[in-house]
Amino acid sequence: MATINDNFLKLKAGYLFPEIARRVKAYAEANPDAPIIKLGIGDVTEPLPEACRSAMIAAVEEMGDRATFKGYGPEQGYGWLREAIAKTDFQSRGCDIDASEIFISDGAKCDCGNILDIFGHNNTIAVTDPVYPVYVDTNVMAGNTGDADDSGKYGGLVYMPISADNNFTAEIPSQKVDLIYLCFPNNPTGATATKEHLKQWVDYAKANGSIILFDAAYEAFITDDSLPHSIYEIEGARDCAIEFRSFSKNAGFTGTRCALAVVPKSLKGKAADGSEVALHQLWNRRQSTKFNGVSYIVQRGAEAVYSAEGQAQTKALIAFYLENARIVREQLTSAGLKVYGGVNAPYVWVKTPDGLTSWDFFDKLLNATHIVGTPGSGFGAAGEGYFRISAFNSRENVNEATRRIVEKFSV
Amino acid sequence: MATINDNFLKLKAGYLFPEIARRVKAYAEANPDAPIIKLGIGDVTEPLPEACRSAMIAAVEEMGDRATFKGYGPEQGYGWLREAIAKTDFQSRGCDIDASEIFISDGAKCDCGNILDIFGHNNTIAVTDPVYPVYVDTNVMAGNTGDADDSGKYGGLVYMPISADNNFTAEIPSQKVDLIYLCFPNNPTGATATKEHLKQWVDYAKANGSIILFDAAYEAFITDDSLPHSIYEIEGARDCAIEFRSFSKNAGFTGTRCALAVVPKSLKGKAADGSEVALHQLWNRRQSTKFNGVSYIVQRGAEAVYSAEGQAQTKALIAFYLENARIVREQLTSAGLKVYGGVNAPYVWVKTPDGLTSWDFFDKLLNATHIVGTPGSGFGAAGEGYFRISAFNSRENVNEATRRIVEKFSV
Repeated sequence: MATINDNFLKLKAGYLFPEIARRVKAYAEANPDAPIIKLGIGDVTEPLPEACRSAMIAAVEEMGDRATFKGYGPEQGYGWLREAIAKTDFQSRGCDIDASEIFISDGAKCDCGNILDIFGHNNTIAVTDPVYPVYVDTNVMAGNTGDADDSGKYGGLVYMPISADNNFTAEIPSQKVDLIYLCFPNNPTGATATKEHLKQWVDYAKANGSIILFDAAYEAFITDDSLPHSIYEIEGARDCAIEFRSFSKNAGFTGTRCALAVVPKSLKGKAADGSEVALHQLWNRRQSTKFNGVSYIVQRGAEAVYSAEGQAQTKALIAFYLENARIVREQLTSAGLKVYGGVNAPYVWVKTPDGLTSWDFFDKLLNATHIVGTPGSGFGAAGEGYFRISAFNSRENVNEATRRIVEKFSV
Repeated sequence: MATINDNFLKLKAGYLFPEIARRVKAYAEANPDAPIIKLGIGDVTEPLPEACRSAMIAAVEEMGDRATFKGYGPEQGYGWLREAIAKTDFQSRGCDIDASEIFISDGAKCDCGNILDIFGHNNTIAVTDPVYPVYVDTNVMAGNTGDADDSGKYGGLVYMPISADNNFTAEIPSQKVDLIYLCFPNNPTGATATKEHLKQWVDYAKANGSIILFDAAYEAFITDDSLPHSIYEIEGARDCAIEFRSFSKNAGFTGTRCALAVVPKSLKGKAADGSEVALHQLWNRRQSTKFNGVSYIVQRGAEAVYSAEGQAQTKALIAFYLENARIVREQLTSAGLKVYGGVNAPYVWVKTPDGLTSWDFFDKLLNATHIVGTPGSGFGAAGEGYFRISAFNSRENVNEATRRIVEKFSV
C-alpha cells in the first residue's frame, strides 16, 4: 500500500483557527440570538480600495479581447508589478532590492510554507514562542522536527520565548541556528522591532551562515518613522534574509490573494558537497515547476496599490484599522486589563485576568460578551495566559465589543 | 551555513518550456522580421468566456461594499463552486463524488506537485515516458528519485514507455508500484484511454494498494461519448485514485488560474505503524496549513462555467480548438508527416521526418517555417523522434502555420 508522510501524524489536533471556528459555531447554535462579534482571526473587513477594483475590472475586460487576452504569465509574476514593488516598497526606503529578486505569489502563508522546499532537512530551526503556527506546522510536515511534547513544543525546534519581560523581542540565541523565523510587526503580540534589534539578528545570521525568514506581512501598520518596514533596511540583510510580504493586510486582499517573497541573488546555502548555491536559483526553479503565477487580474489589482490613488486608499484603510486598535487598547486598559501591541500593528495582546488560561478566557469572553478573540496559547506554550484581539472590524463593532468588555470586566 | 535541498541539484538543466523560450528569443533577435507562430506551449489564445467575465466583474464589485466584501474564504474553496463541480462534472456522469471531496486550487500543476507532501518518500513511483515533466521534476525535488542518467531518466522511478507500438497507453507494470501518474487525454501525445484500459489500472491499483494520480486537465476535449472524462467513471476508482482538473484548457483560465483536485474520503495510505490513514484528511490539513484558497473573484468566474451560458461558451471554445487540431492533423498528414493524437485532445504528436532528433526538428522547423513546437524528447527519452504541435492558437495562425509546413515539408 502507498505510504503516507508520517510527519503529518505528529501535528497537534486542528490548526488554531478551525478550532476557534468550531467553538464559535457550537456557541452560536446553542445561542442563536447572541450578537457575536469576531475579533479573532486577522481578517480584514473593509471594502477593497477603489483603485484596485477599477484595475481588476479593466483587466477582466482585457481578457475578453484576444488582442489583450492573457494566458500563462511569468511564474515569478509580471515585470510591471515586480518593478512597482521594488521601487516603492524597497528602493525608496534605501533597500538594495531588484525587481528580479521579487517573486509574486498567492499568499505569504503559502510562501512561508513552500520556502522549506529549497532547504535541507538537517537545519536547526528557531521560532519565537508564541509564534504564527504556520511556521511550526510546515516544519513538522516537512519532517524537520521530532514529536510534540505535552506543552505542544516539537522536538528539534529552538523556541525563543517572547514576553513582556523581553519586550516581546527574542534574545539572540547562544547556540547556532540555521533558519530563523522573525515576524515584525509581530503576529500575534503586535510588538515591533527597532533597527538596532534587527541589526543584532543580521549580525548573528552573517556570523553563523544562518538565513532569516522575515515575515513583514504587517509592515504597512508602522507609523513610527524610526521603525524599519523591511529587514533590507539593515545593512548586510541581502546576504542573510528572505522577506515575505502580502497585500492581504494593507490593501484588504485576504480574499483576493496576492503576496510576494524577496529572495536576494546574493543569498547562499550550502550543498552536501560543501559548495555554495544561490537560493534565488532554487526558489526560481521551485516556483517554475510547482506554481503557475498569480491571476493576471489579481496582479493588476495589486499593481494599482502603487498608483497615487491606491497609495492614498491603502493609507486610509491602515489608518482606519489603527484607530480601531487604539480604541481596543484604551478601552481594555480602562477596564483594568493589561494590554500590549496595537501601536504600529493591528493586534492587541492582552494579559488574561485572574490567572485564567487563554482558552478559559476565550470561553469566558464568548459567554459574557459574545466576543471572539484568539487564545494566546494557540500560538505556543509561552502564549498561555495571553489573548489576541484583532483590530480588523468595523468601527461600530469595535466600539460595541469594547463597550461590552468594559461593562463586564471593569473592576 | 544553512543547507539546501540537494535534490534540486539532480534536476536536469532548465525546465522544457523556459529552454524553448530561450531558443525562440535568440532566433527572434537574430531574425527580427521572421513571422514566428508559436504552437509550442499549451497555452490558450481565445478570449475568456463572457459568462466568466461578467461573473468576475460582479465579484469585484461585491468587494467594494463592506456588506458583500469577502475576506479569507475556505481553504478548500467555496461550497457553491464545489457543489457545481460535483454535480456537473462528476455526479451527472455517474461518478460517486461529493462536493466535500473537491479541493479548489490555483492550478493543476501546483496540485500535481503539492500532492507529494502527503506521501512517504519510500513509495515506488511510475510515470509514462514521454511524460508531463512536472510529475518527474517534483518527485526529484521531493527526494523520491536518484540521479539522472545520460538519457535523462532518474534512478528509482519506473518509466512506462508509450509509443505508437502500444497505442500510447502504458502497459500494466509487472512489478508493484505505489504511485502511478496517468494523464488522459494525454499530454504530450494526445492519446486517450478507454474505460477498459482505465479499468485495468484501477484493478491493478486496488490489488496492489497503489494510488493513481489521474490528470484529467484535458477531459473537456473528449467528444467521443464512449471515452471516460473522469477516472471515477470506473468502478472502484474512489478507493485508489486522486484526480486533477483545471479550468485552464476548457475555459481559457491559464492566466486566470483555477483548478481542482478530487481526493475521495475512502482513499487510504499506510502509516509507518501499519495503520491506514485517510488521504483526504492529510490533504485537507496540507491545504489548510500551506494554502489560503483561490481568489473569491476567480472562484466566481469558475462557477460561471457551470451556468447555461458558461457551458455553451466553453463548448464553443473547445470546438474551436478541436477544429484547429483537425486542420493540423490533416495538413501535416498531407505533407507526408506521420501524426497521432489531435482527436479528443488539443495536441498533435508528430513523428519527426528523416530520423531527425526532436531538437533538430525543432530547429529545422523554426528556421524553415518560423513555427515553434515542442520537442518530444523534452517529455522523456522515449519522446525522442517525436514533436508536439499544440492546437491552441487563432484559426488564422493555424492555417498559416500548416500552410508553411506543407510548403516546406511536402515530398
